[in-house]
Amino acid sequence: MREDFIASRDNPWTRQCRALAQDSTAYRKTGQVWLEGDHLCRALLTRGQQPEAVVLTEGHQSLAEGWALAPGVRRVVVPARLMAWISGLESPPLVACLYRLPATRSVQPDLPTVVLDRVQDPGNVGSILRSAAAFGFRQVLALRGTAALWAPKVLRAGMGAHFALHLVEGVDVAALDDLQVPLLATSSHQGQWLHQAPLPWPCAWLMGHEGQGVAEALMARAHGLIRIVQPGGEESLNVAAAAAICLHASAVSAFGAPENASRP
Amino acid sequence: MREDFIASRDNPWTRQCRALAQDSTAYRKTGQVWLEGDHLCRALLTRGQQPEAVVLTEGHQSLAEGWALAPGVRRVVVPARLMAWISGLESPPLVACLYRLPATRSVQPDLPTVVLDRVQDPGNVGSILRSAAAFGFRQVLALRGTAALWAPKVLRAGMGAHFALHLVEGVDVAALDDLQVPLLATSSHQGQWLHQAPLPWPCAWLMGHEGQGVAEALMARAHGLIRIVQPGGEESLNVAAAAAICLHASAVSAFGAPENASRP
Repeated sequence: MREDFIASRDNPWTRQCRALAQDSTAYRKTGQVWLEGDHLCRALLTRGQQPEAVVLTEGHQSLAEGWALAPGVRRVVVPARLMAWISGLESPPLVACLYRLPATRSVQPDLPTVVLDRVQDPGNVGSILRSAAAFGFRQVLALRGTAALWAPKVLRAGMGAHFALHLVEGVDVAALDDLQVPLLATSSHQGQWLHQAPLPWPCAWLMGHEGQGVAEALMARAHGLIRIVQPGGEESLNVAAAAAICLHASAVSAFGAPENASRP
Repeated sequence: MREDFIASRDNPWTRQCRALAQDSTAYRKTGQVWLEGDHLCRALLTRGQQPEAVVLTEGHQSLAEGWALAPGVRRVVVPARLMAWISGLESPPLVACLYRLPATRSVQPDLPTVVLDRVQDPGNVGSILRSAAAFGFRQVLALRGTAALWAPKVLRAGMGAHFALHLVEGVDVAALDDLQVPLLATSSHQGQWLHQAPLPWPCAWLMGHEGQGVAEALMARAHGLIRIVQPGGEESLNVAAAAAICLHASAVSAFGAPENASRP
């Protein structure tokens, strides 16, 4: 298979890879993302997607052996020094992929969904995506003001969950009217206790800003308010922790234990 | 009340504050931590603790009015420029506290406990501390190799949970033999399903390294293995998400809904 060797920082392609690897919103200009490391690249392939290019560190070309790459995928080999320059991480990867994002997506009305209202921290967003994928949710809608879903830090924290989900960014609050599944929100002071509440399936869970929570106008749109018991007192939960608890409860309610579980 | 005004970076006290604010393990040398922002400072006071000093940005001295500070607490006023230099954050705080850590603590054998086995990410550690405090756990043991519990990033992510918990760092695996509560661990492939398992209370939950999970030798010490349903497929969960789900399940099992909840 043909391999291109690129060693220069002054290559427009190299500079673009670096921007994608280090700038959290560069993907919005080019429509491509930089997937860093073996795990993310494999997660893409596992979900039946193909990268535009595989970028391998010189001396480690065998890393992509056995990957189910389509014939048209470009293979590029770069010196370790250049991979480190592109990556910017303390531990640069041995392999990366360039992946072209699917065309802009619209809100799907009937999928089990998580709605993010201005969640800021990339680690939280990535963790919520992972929980969503693990618990059978299929769509994540990021309202305006939420961290960029395909930012490098979110991709790392998401550990491949991105490729299992229908992701829509820059969603207007009004677009939530299109959802045909009930919208649930957590509240600190009202609603049914999560462990006692009958949970509808499919549903959409609303998760809010780290400091301010879900905006009031949005709370008013929720069909159900749910509380999480906190016997320890007045402590609050991290938003990704609260999301994990709620999405798990939905999964238990909808699917039960695996003997009788199946994807809807 | 007397206020000291400090404006110089060349003051040993100022330099020490900066080290505590920016270096994740500086507290181990001095036994003090830098608590940044109104929320953390108030969380300390709410738990009946006192800082050594309150550090206020010039022009914002009124911020600490109404705080239940002991007479011996030093008040220091610094120019905004110096606070920014100490903090190193993009948005420096208007108020901070210097807090002297309690003397080295030993493992308490019978408290509801979370054991951290080499959890690396400060955000994850802080999130787990928040969940632990919220769900009625009282002790967190950090085995050797875990991120520094009192590091500035962990303090920020912990949102005050540190002051609600008995925290012990640098714990040897052998010290887990002192625990008189059953040790539970999550497993991806064996054990009872969390939502079906009878959960003992008090108990100790074992949470492991982000990539490697709980060390095998430790898994062998667990009295119970617990699985979390994941109908979405082979995705894995972030460790702080898994912790939140498990600790919540324990809280529900031990306390139920608040009508019949009380601290043990």
